[in-house]
Amino acid sequence: MKKIAIIGTGTVGQTFASKFISLGYEVMIGTRDVSEKLASTAKDGYGGPPFSEWHAQYKDVKLGNFAEAAAFGEIVLNATQGANSINALKLAEAKNLNGKIIIDVANPLDFSKGMPPCLMPELSNTNSLGEEIQRVFPDAKVVKALNTMWCGIMVNPNMIGGGDHTAFVCGNDADAKTRVKSLMNEFGWKNGNILDLGDISSARGTEAVLPVWVRIWGARQNGAFNFKIVG
Amino acid sequence: MKKIAIIGTGTVGQTFASKFISLGYEVMIGTRDVSEKLASTAKDGYGGPPFSEWHAQYKDVKLGNFAEAAAFGEIVLNATQGANSINALKLAEAKNLNGKIIIDVANPLDFSKGMPPCLMPELSNTNSLGEEIQRVFPDAKVVKALNTMWCGIMVNPNMIGGGDHTAFVCGNDADAKTRVKSLMNEFGWKNGNILDLGDISSARGTEAVLPVWVRIWGARQNGAFNFKIVG
Repeated sequence: MKKIAIIGTGTVGQTFASKFISLGYEVMIGTRDVSEKLASTAKDGYGGPPFSEWHAQYKDVKLGNFAEAAAFGEIVLNATQGANSINALKLAEAKNLNGKIIIDVANPLDFSKGMPPCLMPELSNTNSLGEEIQRVFPDAKVVKALNTMWCGIMVNPNMIGGGDHTAFVCGNDADAKTRVKSLMNEFGWKNGNILDLGDISSARGTEAVLPVWVRIWGARQNGAFNFKIVG
Repeated sequence: MKKIAIIGTGTVGQTFASKFISLGYEVMIGTRDVSEKLASTAKDGYGGPPFSEWHAQYKDVKLGNFAEAAAFGEIVLNATQGANSINALKLAEAKNLNGKIIIDVANPLDFSKGMPPCLMPELSNTNSLGEEIQRVFPDAKVVKALNTMWCGIMVNPNMIGGGDHTAFVCGNDADAKTRVKSLMNEFGWKNGNILDLGDISSARGTEAVLPVWVRIWGARQNGAFNFKIVG
């Protein structure tokens, strides 16, 4: 399977797209409206260059609307902001997602109550974004993975600590988790550093890492870190 | 300052009490009703022996009601279950807490919705137990610390990984945090492994570690682990 759909055009989506291209995959990024996205000269939400500038350097990355990208991908990666994920995936359409692995790297951050963000109340504590996606798309295989760190480390664990730190995976389908772990191996993750936490309800745990992540980021003023389980 | 009050008679309180005794401190454990607690033959909530059996081995540990213990202690450690912490500290009385450091190692776990526990909605996400204690006792100096790991490791970090893993502290009073770090040094924590996350609102982050902690515990079936920040 060498065709990847990435839902979301932000830094996370760009990071995965360029990594998958470097690994020899075909990639299509899905966005609401391709021509509008390419025409926009607005900086991204974090002050980065507009999407068109990034894409000019990665012309091998195909672009489509959400449904076109999902139809193209053999695996679909959700790299939208958590507050928008369900709507974006609905626009991608269940018929284009059914039977496929959805790798969910997003977090249900709520920026409406000031910084640092909290979690969206309806998607935390007794629920999670990963579970909600699985509930809305019961015929897809949702694997929550890699959402507990900055995206640069998601696709390049060897950037810090010799790659010796921990990534979590959660999901209801064992084969889907095995496939995602294999992709993570291609990024440089060693199996001994990938911890399977069980079914998709474990996303309640991994998404709850974000409130401490943002505090650690605040204390260090540097997001290039990850958690290692010692013991 | 060599007098420590420990509020709570469970495994966490016992663990701190015996550690402080071994370090030469005077310790009083506070409980609602001393004679009732000593008369009880019920196992503790995790199936451990009744409190009286533990205390028979640690007769140097003084016992008092919540207010007597708080009045005795120069530093007060909250080792109650998070759901009971505010009530227990109210019984300890503000006049016995004012001006003192309250080390809060508790977590606002909600066991009412099944296992694994979630967090108490009113004490999580946009609030925390640490903040709530500081709000109810504005003249105490609350330091949230050590709540992200099993109690055996709190007082003995060298039990795993050569002690090279991370403990967080949060609180509004810099001197109080310095004092708590010094106590942690006595337990074996190296300063390079203690990360100050800022004011007491950062307890929203460290208490949110519990939802992933319980999932990791479930996957490993072993609580003797901790998180290390790598990067």
